[in-house]
Amino acid sequence: MVDTRFFNSNAPMALAEIAQICDAKLVDESKSGVKISGLATMQNAGEGEICFFYDRKQKAKAAEIKASACVTTEELLPFMPKGIIILTAANPHLAFLKLNRAMYSEPVPAPEIRPTAVIDKSAVIGENCFIGDHVVIEENVKIGANCILETGVVISRGCEIGSNCRIGVNAHISHCLMGNGCYIYGGVRIGWDGFGFMFIQGRHEKIPQLGRVIIGNDVEIGANTCIDRGALDDTVIGDGCRIDDLVMVAHNIKLGRGCVLVSQTGIAGSCTFGDYVVCGGQTGFADHLTIGSGAQIAAQSGIMRDVEPGAVVMGTPAVPIKDFMRQVAFLQKNSKK
Amino acid sequence: MVDTRFFNSNAPMALAEIAQICDAKLVDESKSGVKISGLATMQNAGEGEICFFYDRKQKAKAAEIKASACVTTEELLPFMPKGIIILTAANPHLAFLKLNRAMYSEPVPAPEIRPTAVIDKSAVIGENCFIGDHVVIEENVKIGANCILETGVVISRGCEIGSNCRIGVNAHISHCLMGNGCYIYGGVRIGWDGFGFMFIQGRHEKIPQLGRVIIGNDVEIGANTCIDRGALDDTVIGDGCRIDDLVMVAHNIKLGRGCVLVSQTGIAGSCTFGDYVVCGGQTGFADHLTIGSGAQIAAQSGIMRDVEPGAVVMGTPAVPIKDFMRQVAFLQKNSKK
Amino acid sequence: MVDTRFFNSNAPMALAEIAQICDAKLVDESKSGVKISGLATMQNAGEGEICFFYDRKQKAKAAEIKASACVTTEELLPFMPKGIIILTAANPHLAFLKLNRAMYSEPVPAPEIRPTAVIDKSAVIGENCFIGDHVVIEENVKIGANCILETGVVISRGCEIGSNCRIGVNAHISHCLMGNGCYIYGGVRIGWDGFGFMFIQGRHEKIPQLGRVIIGNDVEIGANTCIDRGALDDTVIGDGCRIDDLVMVAHNIKLGRGCVLVSQTGIAGSCTFGDYVVCGGQTGFADHLTIGSGAQIAAQSGIMRDVEPGAVVMGTPAVPIKDFMRQVAFLQKNSKK
Repeated sequence: MVDTRFFNSNAPMALAEIAQICDAKLVDESKSGVKISGLATMQNAGEGEICFFYDRKQKAKAAEIKASACVTTEELLPFMPKGIIILTAANPHLAFLKLNRAMYSEPVPAPEIRPTAVIDKSAVIGENCFIGDHVVIEENVKIGANCILETGVVISRGCEIGSNCRIGVNAHISHCLMGNGCYIYGGVRIGWDGFGFMFIQGRHEKIPQLGRVIIGNDVEIGANTCIDRGALDDTVIGDGCRIDDLVMVAHNIKLGRGCVLVSQTGIAGSCTFGDYVVCGGQTGFADHLTIGSGAQIAAQSGIMRDVEPGAVVMGTPAVPIKDFMRQVAFLQKNSKK
Repeated sequence: MVDTRFFNSNAPMALAEIAQICDAKLVDESKSGVKISGLATMQNAGEGEICFFYDRKQKAKAAEIKASACVTTEELLPFMPKGIIILTAANPHLAFLKLNRAMYSEPVPAPEIRPTAVIDKSAVIGENCFIGDHVVIEENVKIGANCILETGVVISRGCEIGSNCRIGVNAHISHCLMGNGCYIYGGVRIGWDGFGFMFIQGRHEKIPQLGRVIIGNDVEIGANTCIDRGALDDTVIGDGCRIDDLVMVAHNIKLGRGCVLVSQTGIAGSCTFGDYVVCGGQTGFADHLTIGSGAQIAAQSGIMRDVEPGAVVMGTPAVPIKDFMRQVAFLQKNSKK
Repeated sequence: MVDTRFFNSNAPMALAEIAQICDAKLVDESKSGVKISGLATMQNAGEGEICFFYDRKQKAKAAEIKASACVTTEELLPFMPKGIIILTAANPHLAFLKLNRAMYSEPVPAPEIRPTAVIDKSAVIGENCFIGDHVVIEENVKIGANCILETGVVISRGCEIGSNCRIGVNAHISHCLMGNGCYIYGGVRIGWDGFGFMFIQGRHEKIPQLGRVIIGNDVEIGANTCIDRGALDDTVIGDGCRIDDLVMVAHNIKLGRGCVLVSQTGIAGSCTFGDYVVCGGQTGFADHLTIGSGAQIAAQSGIMRDVEPGAVVMGTPAVPIKDFMRQVAFLQKNSKK
């Protein structure tokens, strides 16, 4: 049961409308007028609610469904208990996404500049923006239309933010040019100095970091993640990247399109990623590596060499995942007496 | 020597009072009027101060104690140097905790709503709360009695916070129902979107995250830790959990009672933990795992399968700790020529 | 090309001046009046710009240099293409650092106390400080001269900050005495409670943390890093330490001079580091360890025992790096059929 203290709901919705949204077929057409009060998981959905059953591994649990209605596939029909209104769809997972979006939404603040915000007079702010309490926008910043800057956001001098961006509570954007449609979570730190020093006579002398952070369109960056600016080159995050919470992206890194970095991943300086690279949680990368498009890096792996496009690797130092599993099996077998 | 710029001190205290607090016995009763000026470690305590000696491994260092008084056990008496006033207790570690609490305290701000706080008129705030500078409390938030919201805290719409909670500087609480007596450190991010996407025609389509974060009573959450809200189910943190700094708790995770997550632990989505699970630092968990009550996960381990109640595991992938040690020994022995 | 939206530039500069700054020799003295518009990498420098070529591994790429001028060594001259004005220096890397500093700088805010800052009347603030918007400075805080406290910084009661410090956006400093010339990045959390509990009758009882964080001179601390205060002793960060983003430093840790902690490193309580210890990214340390001066810990290593001065170790549990590489080779060889 989605909590309407936090989300807007369009429920109740009739099954006829739901079937249309889901591109699904009501097995019993006479039920098309039945009203559905909400969406929930297979395990938790109760009377009046609808759920989705598309994962074959859950088939044993289908018998326990208590929802009033369920969207599933033709193929999974035999596992459905009686007494539940069934809709079939070719792709119930996609149907779930569509109904989710049609039935619920997050409240969006109306355009407003809150009186406690501090905005330099040289800043240019697009139409229909919400600028929250205690936001600070420094000199020569440009912000596109329809942006939401939540409480306490700081946009440092000279930054440019595209349109339709959402910047979360207490995020700080510095030395950055950002595209459209980006979603930056709370506490994110973009544009701090890369970690570069020269050791001279007993002191780590700072190498001033003179680059920027260039963020494409449609990028999502998770809470408390840090993306350092480049040393002389820029740090670049490609269109459509999805970066989770507490990730570290060091200076000069180039991420291609659609890369996925799961939480606590750390990438050392000057790595270049192709498109659609996927990094599991807590993976680490040495500096100056090239990671090919479509490579998949298993969680906690430590990458010390370049990775070929499409490779699937694991371990520290990472090896092809089959080799890793063989190493694990070898060790388990041989270390026992 | 505890620094009274930062802590309130009830010292000096007479040894008679200290003995009572510590449930300890003064070996030489004639010393009961001696005043003690402070509490310090065995190594650092000096004249006028008291220390505690209960760790047998420190016995060689007991001879160097410079404190005026020391609480120890009957058993450890032979290691004590002359000239120090000795108190004996059955459990000096517990005595330390009691004296610590009796002698010192952190200053607590008096109830007040600071004038720079921004509080929506629909919010309900209990009695005796301190609401710090630049705090923002959004619509329909409910906050119990005796809470402390430090500088820059943001409580987003609809959240409910129990009584006697302390929320640290710049923490942000969203989509959350929190119990009583919780202590949230600075920079914590509670309630951001879980990391859920569907890959459709070259784009990672966002699955709206419609769940909440439910936090029990007496929970402690460390600095800059991130706890994502559920996808449809809730993320649940059980009563009495202790979570360290920079921890990642992903969507739909259920932690039982009294779990301990040491710093930089990361738990992927939909894991279910029993009670009193202990995770060392930098441990990582794959998604959808079940971790039994009382399981102990050694630091840096990578958990890829369910863990039995009470199991003690280590490594990536984690194995029983004895097996891990055997693997380590095997490798060290056999890799040498 | 350094972006002058973000940095001040002293370019154009004549090559004669550049040669002087770089302690370099113009091979063709007739070029001393040529003006240089900026500094860029070997790969990106274009017409009017200068670059540096000192890494022998890049020699194959030297032929593609498009810069107007290049600083290199006598030794690397044979790899330089024609048509580029060449300067030779004994140490071009150092020359790069000098020119970088001479040609560019970050804009520094003029001394000012922004009107939205909240400063307790008992606080003492030195001359020429910049105190940004929404900064909060609590009672009895002392801040030295020439400090920059950026937007939203919070300095809690009793803290002392030396002179010439820069504290970044939304950083929070508590229970701390800090030296001169420190640079604290945004979102840093200094002085929260160490993670200390006693398990009593089913509850993790909090051990009040009564220590401080003592930070030396010339220390740099990266974004969103957490440094907990001591339990009774202090947490100590020695002069000249360089700490990257998202690092965890637990209670009672003592770092010597000039230690380097790369991103996502985590150090458990009461470890003692000598001077100039270097920790790669994502390294982890068990508690109460002694790490000798000059030790180097490879990325992702897990340190479970003391490390000798000057040792270079890797792996979990960490072993001398040669042993680690031998283990890796052994496993790779023997796990294959």
